[in-house]
Amino acid sequence: MPQLGLLHWRAWTVLLGQLRRPPGAVCIRAVRSHSQVAEALFASQLKPDQEKSNFIIKTPKGTRDLSPQQMVVREKILDVVVSCFKRHGAKGLDTPAFELKEVLTEKYGEDCGLIYDLQDQGGELLSLRYDLTYPSSLTYLCEVPFARYLAMNKVKKMKRYHVGKVWRRESPTIVQGRYREFYQCDFDIAGQFDPMIPDAECLKIMCEILSGLQLGDFLIKMSWKDVRHEMVVKKGLAPEVADRIGDYVQCHGGISLVEQMFQDPVLSQNKQALEGLGDLKLLFEYLTLFGVAEKVSFDLSLARGLDYYTGVIYEAVLLQTPVHAEEEPLNVGSVAAGGRYDGLVGMFDPRGHKVPCVGLSIGVERIFSIVEQRMKIFGEKIRTTETQVFVATPQKNFLQERLKLIAELWDAGIKAELMYKNNPKLLPQLHYCENMGIPLVVIIGEQELKEGVIKLRSVASREEVAIKRENLVAEIQKRLS
Amino acid sequence: MPQLGLLHWRAWTVLLGQLRRPPGAVCIRAVRSHSQVAEALFASQLKPDQEKSNFIIKTPKGTRDLSPQQMVVREKILDVVVSCFKRHGAKGLDTPAFELKEVLTEKYGEDCGLIYDLQDQGGELLSLRYDLTYPSSLTYLCEVPFARYLAMNKVKKMKRYHVGKVWRRESPTIVQGRYREFYQCDFDIAGQFDPMIPDAECLKIMCEILSGLQLGDFLIKMSWKDVRHEMVVKKGLAPEVADRIGDYVQCHGGISLVEQMFQDPVLSQNKQALEGLGDLKLLFEYLTLFGVAEKVSFDLSLARGLDYYTGVIYEAVLLQTPVHAEEEPLNVGSVAAGGRYDGLVGMFDPRGHKVPCVGLSIGVERIFSIVEQRMKIFGEKIRTTETQVFVATPQKNFLQERLKLIAELWDAGIKAELMYKNNPKLLPQLHYCENMGIPLVVIIGEQELKEGVIKLRSVASREEVAIKRENLVAEIQKRLS
Repeated sequence: MPQLGLLHWRAWTVLLGQLRRPPGAVCIRAVRSHSQVAEALFASQLKPDQEKSNFIIKTPKGTRDLSPQQMVVREKILDVVVSCFKRHGAKGLDTPAFELKEVLTEKYGEDCGLIYDLQDQGGELLSLRYDLTYPSSLTYLCEVPFARYLAMNKVKKMKRYHVGKVWRRESPTIVQGRYREFYQCDFDIAGQFDPMIPDAECLKIMCEILSGLQLGDFLIKMSWKDVRHEMVVKKGLAPEVADRIGDYVQCHGGISLVEQMFQDPVLSQNKQALEGLGDLKLLFEYLTLFGVAEKVSFDLSLARGLDYYTGVIYEAVLLQTPVHAEEEPLNVGSVAAGGRYDGLVGMFDPRGHKVPCVGLSIGVERIFSIVEQRMKIFGEKIRTTETQVFVATPQKNFLQERLKLIAELWDAGIKAELMYKNNPKLLPQLHYCENMGIPLVVIIGEQELKEGVIKLRSVASREEVAIKRENLVAEIQKRLS
Repeated sequence: MPQLGLLHWRAWTVLLGQLRRPPGAVCIRAVRSHSQVAEALFASQLKPDQEKSNFIIKTPKGTRDLSPQQMVVREKILDVVVSCFKRHGAKGLDTPAFELKEVLTEKYGEDCGLIYDLQDQGGELLSLRYDLTYPSSLTYLCEVPFARYLAMNKVKKMKRYHVGKVWRRESPTIVQGRYREFYQCDFDIAGQFDPMIPDAECLKIMCEILSGLQLGDFLIKMSWKDVRHEMVVKKGLAPEVADRIGDYVQCHGGISLVEQMFQDPVLSQNKQALEGLGDLKLLFEYLTLFGVAEKVSFDLSLARGLDYYTGVIYEAVLLQTPVHAEEEPLNVGSVAAGGRYDGLVGMFDPRGHKVPCVGLSIGVERIFSIVEQRMKIFGEKIRTTETQVFVATPQKNFLQERLKLIAELWDAGIKAELMYKNNPKLLPQLHYCENMGIPLVVIIGEQELKEGVIKLRSVASREEVAIKRENLVAEIQKRLS
């Protein structure tokens, strides 16, 4: 059975590029982020001769520090994404941040101009990785760590995920919402398998991740134009027959649309059309079994701007509307993309042996912006630490007892903090717990020491109970479980 | 009370540098790793005109891909390290992979030569971060993302951890065990606090991590030479009195040694010596309360090669002996380092306001090598996936049932795989489970379908039980919990 999905790897890279480079709608958020990495001016005494000089301390253009709050958001997103990849049996893989430039660009006479090159300091010419898996949207081949890994190690079959930073020297500035350093989360299935099974799994994964991230309603759109090109150029379908299919496709739709096409008087008489539709039907059958068929739809509009590309690509778009009328509308846009790129690995192979690949990429930066914006709207407070217990005292000269106590908690695996002060006052200690969202306080003072107990206080209810010193760890573990 | 530990940030950076750049002893492992990233030669058809050209596909010098097996090892290590950092209430932080070169090196007329510079492609001059927190051992100031973050955001107090890649253009090659790209795990406490409390916590953290990683026995050594310098130069102690202390220190020892010094007829008469010893005693008191005093020792030998450095630094060394006589001796070396660097942040501040800092850094690469070597010795098998259930069939035409079943498992959060084949044979499916260490197999065939049951097979015991289809997920979750 011919594979409709067996298309060129270039097919969906434009989309990936667009996905990771959000349009104007992201400006507002980007400006906000920018203020977080506000450029501070400092004069300094750094020169060995103590000579003062003025200089700017900032992060490079298009990059930012991630604050503890932002780190929590990113960790939550990556956790959902990676858990899903692992649920589907993927192995982890990591590649260096830079690759040989001469192998990946110069030898092929092309350079997309968006690659960060490392300076020639003697030795190899290197470039920062532009992508974990897929070539750029603007050049024939930029950086292809996954394909390089497969070819280099002669791996013919692999289900792997890769989470890491990539870098792109885009000219638009950070104010336009375009970062030059960002995270990429890729999942790919390499290998020759029965048609449409891995493809359907990739679409299922996209759905699981987007549901898991609770970004609201979403839809995965497949580009009809790519399907048509595949049918006509690769499968030899008459253009007019393909266009007949196109009439259906422009209706937007999933499995029911495919069924409808099978009934069409023209299409049902055409062998090639039936073959192509057969693959499409197969994919939707699998998606139905996976319970995600309603989430996948053809869409002609997706083909805009992809004139010179071939191959079926898909992207996931959010369909959210604001929850409250007074809310700013959330940026409804592309948050994931994927597709087949069967030709890429073969390019690295001396005999051109192909390793068919299908995969997807999650647009972490855009999702990050959406989640961050939503948290702001809902005033959600983010805990930047995971501390479970604070060790406090109302009295002077209790540092030693506090240190002994906290070491007990740490050794029992309990996340605990104390104030680095010999004689702290009680109120600031309790305030700190409230501010940081620490649920429990352990209080030790003279009375408690004498009686061999510890006071355990719930920060939320302000209730305090005395607990025998030897039962403290068990009691805390019980409360935390 | 004066702080013995309040020393210059440069104090322990040599040690960090040495720690991350293992000596000759690491050669054997490094050669092994090198074979894993063996250079493969390929001819290719990458040029758009399909013209053939020969080229080498490899990773850049001093870098490597991390295979799925290696990823599992690294993840385990990072998990122990980060869990400990979180247990101590640290917040996460991330900084860009590169920093402005002009701010960090050129303006100060120094460049350690080990920094990867990015090519001048117009715009800012950039360099890859050399370190997450600390300046290099060979230059006055290379890259200092944490200090830059504190100064830029005017943060005066912060307990943070940072895990990320850093890059060093070292000339020795990978064959000598020196990677140019590696992971760094830093924990630091910035802020003005009562003396020795955060310092003691850093030492406690080192102990927890090394115990948690089960690397065998270890010892944290403090350099006496640095302590002496601090006492003489900064506290104005007469050199002969300091040397008197040194006599003790060369004995190697912890709290008992400090106690002994307090009894010394010369030292007990000297006010400054008593002050200095007081701080030292305080630190050991806290370490005793934390239950780690026996793990910390002074050691004169540590001062070797640190002639021009000031400040107390400490490093953790492994004391392992082989478990079996026939074993290769494991590399016993430095796996973590830390200390005070109170001057660094102030350098970025226009008025020179200091933010005292104390921290530690875990030598992930060396620990990685040790864990990897140990796993090889013990023939430990590493699972590269976390798959819990495999969905199999002994019969033809059961793809649809398998797909429906596996979607149910995925949706219930169960990690599951199947073969991407329409009609796989049973034996290869079971073999795959054995090879991959998948504990459970769910089998569906005609008989099961008819009876509304599913066979659940334990891979280890090969026992099979029939379970009602509707109870399957619950039964699997019970078995997995």
